[in-house]
Amino acid sequence: GHYVIIGRGSSIPSCVSELTSAISSGEVELKPIVVVFPDEGERKKVELPEEVEVLIGDPTNPETLERAHVKEASYVILALEDDSKSVFTTLMVKRMSNAKVFVEALRGESLELLKGAGADRVILSRSLAGRLLASSVFEPEVVDVIDDLTTASGGYDITVLERRDLWGVPYVEAMKRLHGEGYFLLGYYKEKPVLNPVLNEEIPEGSKLIVIKPGSSSGKR
Amino acid sequence: GHYVIIGRGSSIPSCVSELTSAISSGEVELKPIVVVFPDEGERKKVELPEEVEVLIGDPTNPETLERAHVKEASYVILALEDDSKSVFTTLMVKRMSNAKVFVEALRGESLELLKGAGADRVILSRSLAGRLLASSVFEPEVVDVIDDLTTASGGYDITVLERRDLWGVPYVEAMKRLHGEGYFLLGYYKEKPVLNPVLNEEIPEGSKLIVIKPGSSSGKR
Ligand SMILES: [Ca+2]
Ligand SMILES: [Ca+2]
Repeated sequence: GHYVIIGRGSSIPSCVSELTSAISSGEVELKPIVVVFPDEGERKKVELPEEVEVLIGDPTNPETLERAHVKEASYVILALEDDSKSVFTTLMVKRMSNAKVFVEALRGESLELLKGAGADRVILSRSLAGRLLASSVFEPEVVDVIDDLTTASGGYDITVLERRDLWGVPYVEAMKRLHGEGYFLLGYYKEKPVLNPVLNEEIPEGSKLIVIKPGSSSGKR
Repeated sequence: GHYVIIGRGSSIPSCVSELTSAISSGEVELKPIVVVFPDEGERKKVELPEEVEVLIGDPTNPETLERAHVKEASYVILALEDDSKSVFTTLMVKRMSNAKVFVEALRGESLELLKGAGADRVILSRSLAGRLLASSVFEPEVVDVIDDLTTASGGYDITVLERRDLWGVPYVEAMKRLHGEGYFLLGYYKEKPVLNPVLNEEIPEGSKLIVIKPGSSSGKR
């Protein structure tokens, strides 16, 4: 299936650009991207790559979701700037499709409702912003690091590696080997992140490695 | 001076809660917090600790800023949900006060305007959300790690330490010592973050250390 991205505001171009750059680097499968804006005004505010298909329609109208072929989609991403609409649309999408649904929510109180509606992941953009604004007061260095790790610009990126050759290897040994390749091992991921384990712990079979790597630093966004 | 937080929506309670918890843990100086909402409706949506002073007023009206004693403030945080208002208010605050100004912006295009107006830091909440939504498709593990590192919940937090005793010590040695104390050394900060330096590099004088520590995991937010 394809990717459907529904919403308004600057979450949309940022999401599309991240997805297309992951497609062009081969990190994610090449599949069509369909973006749904609520009106022409929103569409005009945003410049999108020409391979992206654009539709206009009310996201809470089932007919809009049908036009975007949500039924066949693999992923549906909602950034509607309206949490009650997001809950409603999540319910509709989940009823008509097996797509994974990822939702941007504005209010922390919406988290449980969205999960209940079937959202596979909820990003609380504004809570995070509030937290980073406060941290800017008392630990600006942490905000700089998070800013760098979470954007394509700056000196560093965080990523995951699948390295079967390191399964069963003691953590400290894996750390050294990856350091030689320019990666900084943060931990491993098996169902959930385990950072900084005991140094002689063996990297578990089936896990992925979480690393920091030098960033592309191209300022592509 | 005091802290002035001006805006609407869920960035506000998240910012206040982060700041009050940093005050109560002694990470930041105890000073009054003043929150300015644009109207009674916004004020009612939010529950704030009772030691926070609340004002109602248009943030683009200089009289509102005077009532909040912005002139004497040390920090002014803006989360207005409107980037043109934020540019305007930043200019006004900077003209009447020496406060540091931290701003949540919704659109990437506002970044340069806000910096030009004198903002000391700009958080692009929705660009970050868009990026995390896209990353949820192809590297959900990374989103989990970032989610954990940027919220008080989960198993880990990122923080900075001032450890004069480690200045001049080779990086790998500092790493080992901190590991023994339960910290995971990510790098050091001197003007900008330097993560994962060469292992025999000495921690520079005057730098702070960036570490991951086990989280409070209290789910306090
Ligand atoms: Ca980066
Ligand atoms: Ca955490």
